[in-house]
Amino acid sequence: MHELVKRLRRFAEEREWEQFHSPKNLSMALSVEVAEIVEHFQWLTEEESRCLGDDKRAELAEEIGDVMIYLVNLSDKLGIDPLRAASEKLDKNEKKYPVGLVKGKSLKYTEY
Amino acid sequence: MHELVKRLRRFAEEREWEQFHSPKNLSMALSVEVAEIVEHFQWLTEEESRCLGDDKRAELAEEIGDVMIYLVNLSDKLGIDPLRAASEKLDKNEKKYPVGLVKGKSLKYTEY
Amino acid sequence: MHELVKRLRRFAEEREWEQFHSPKNLSMALSVEVAEIVEHFQWLTEEESRCLGDDKRAELAEEIGDVMIYLVNLSDKLGIDPLRAASEKLDKNEKKYPVGLVKGKSLKYTEY
Amino acid sequence: MHELVKRLRRFAEEREWEQFHSPKNLSMALSVEVAEIVEHFQWLTEEESRCLGDDKRAELAEEIGDVMIYLVNLSDKLGIDPLRAASEKLDKNEKKYPVGLVKGKSLKYTEY
Repeated sequence: MHELVKRLRRFAEEREWEQFHSPKNLSMALSVEVAEIVEHFQWLTEEESRCLGDDKRAELAEEIGDVMIYLVNLSDKLGIDPLRAASEKLDKNEKKYPVGLVKGKSLKYTEY
Repeated sequence: MHELVKRLRRFAEEREWEQFHSPKNLSMALSVEVAEIVEHFQWLTEEESRCLGDDKRAELAEEIGDVMIYLVNLSDKLGIDPLRAASEKLDKNEKKYPVGLVKGKSLKYTEY
Repeated sequence: MHELVKRLRRFAEEREWEQFHSPKNLSMALSVEVAEIVEHFQWLTEEESRCLGDDKRAELAEEIGDVMIYLVNLSDKLGIDPLRAASEKLDKNEKKYPVGLVKGKSLKYTEY
Repeated sequence: MHELVKRLRRFAEEREWEQFHSPKNLSMALSVEVAEIVEHFQWLTEEESRCLGDDKRAELAEEIGDVMIYLVNLSDKLGIDPLRAASEKLDKNEKKYPVGLVKGKSLKYTEY
């Protein structure tokens, strides 16, 4: 992760692209890239989405790479460590959704 | 990252939520969480988005945590390592946008 | 539709909100509102999404209202008539996907 | 609008695409099309987004057409009239944001 942050900084600096990389713009780019993931799944059944072929998975790896790039870039601009943020959010979720209460129950009735 | 993957697997297993976590559904949840980031920036100027206060940054850390959780979850389901995917995409981008060609030029005329 | 456009203009003018309603910002707000629709469906099966109760439908009517508001607002700023735009796009789609070629075939193999 | 609804129904029926058009799937397609609008604006300044050239506007008319198509399609499946939904939401917003209270004040501090 630390290596990725450093490469992304150098990548933008060398190209003088920092001027375009406001958090506002990066949040838009992030949403555009996520939509490219959603596009792969929009007409698939859930079952089909669980057993993709190698070609589809290779395409999705590229889209996931793009999302990760913008997420890490945005986080870096905001001084946030995305792995720590995920870990701390998971701490909260573990308390918010105690196993005894939600086990086997559908997420769709929660605010998760 | 490896630790996060393991915690996320255990989190879903303990709650028997795997049944809801098809890649299709996870891609939807990912897009919903990204929109919560976008929501913070929609009425801010770019300049304002560059100098957020501590409260806003704390809120955004939670949203980024959520996005990271779903991105890692989806990647795990697809057998994709998101850090490697980002690194490989960056390799491609470095070739696609050579410094000499795009330096100081606006991203808006590229497909970046 | 014409009535809606007029009301939206007056609504923003009276509140002096035009300054925030750049097409860039309106596109962000549009994406945020669409995500609120997606949120309703993220953990539902396709089948469940086809037979929602009245409460859910009332909630979705509000979200659809929001999306329509921002879509019409954005279109107005760009001098585009959204109904005509839809009609012209449908003309194109009818040529692009001739019945004889795609009938009964899954959208998922097309670019639709 | 009524004409558009009829054409969209016939379009899907002739192609036997109703099977793919669950509200869940349509909400995903809607979000994908909205992202194509956002993509046009992601690296533009707000000012630039206010004065687009004719080519850009023609491209955006197509994207707006796509969004409208899916929004009307989804609304039809849910038995919702999108124009009425917008009108009713606007009634609410007029009460929620009284001119005297929010005039000239930034949306960014409201929940609008």
